[in-house]
Amino acid sequence: MDCNCAYCMKGELVEKFGYFACELETSTVYVFREQSKPGRCIVAHKKHVSELIDLTDEERNAYFADIAKVARALHRAFHPDKVNYGAYGDTGHHLHFHLVPKYKGGDEWGSTFEMNSGKVLLTDPEYEKLAQQIRDNLD
Amino acid sequence: MDCNCAYCMKGELVEKFGYFACELETSTVYVFREQSKPGRCIVAHKKHVSELIDLTDEERNAYFADIAKVARALHRAFHPDKVNYGAYGDTGHHLHFHLVPKYKGGDEWGSTFEMNSGKVLLTDPEYEKLAQQIRDNLD
Repeated sequence: MDCNCAYCMKGELVEKFGYFACELETSTVYVFREQSKPGRCIVAHKKHVSELIDLTDEERNAYFADIAKVARALHRAFHPDKVNYGAYGDTGHHLHFHLVPKYKGGDEWGSTFEMNSGKVLLTDPEYEKLAQQIRDNLD
Repeated sequence: MDCNCAYCMKGELVEKFGYFACELETSTVYVFREQSKPGRCIVAHKKHVSELIDLTDEERNAYFADIAKVARALHRAFHPDKVNYGAYGDTGHHLHFHLVPKYKGGDEWGSTFEMNSGKVLLTDPEYEKLAQQIRDNLD
């Protein structure tokens, strides 16, 4: 292991904020533990690269195919009014996108979103149910 | 014109928050008028679709090729420590990504970013200079 970041190390480092949902072709999907926006998740690239510009064209196409697949699953499973997509990671170097379902009148509707407000935390069986809903709705 | 959103209407609606930089294959690039993060811009899709899931695979690949092209230009022109990528638009329905250069110790470093803080506004000649720096650094 040549990298000690949460997405490469996995285990307890990523489990602090993410609950494993599934592996896709280029990425790993985690339910984000802070669930003020039901269905919020992370699509983390399998490669330790900093930004989407560090992927080849083929890798970038495959990664955004995964992101689209997860976003369609979120729409089917949770019926949000919009999904937001955000990649930040200023102090980390492992490409991942936050997919954040937004609901009219719900938390942070009409705005961006906080990185991790800590407002709504669930139990592991509840995270597992969300993960199953995502898996069940993948193309 | 079958749509009255800022990105379809262009003109003064988009000029309130964006300064035209250039047209790419699938998108139009605007310098974001709020410049607390130097180089911040918007890459708006030419089609009036709500989210990236509303594009075909080919359209999505071409759009993210444009986004990667602009991000590489931002790195070359402004040397940020990271570029953030965010798509929100809860109350609009026209796909666009905010590309937000972040600088160690600078505004909102280590966090997400506000939609429009209004902190730093420039003059049109200054926006034109930023737009030219982006154009000069496209692949």
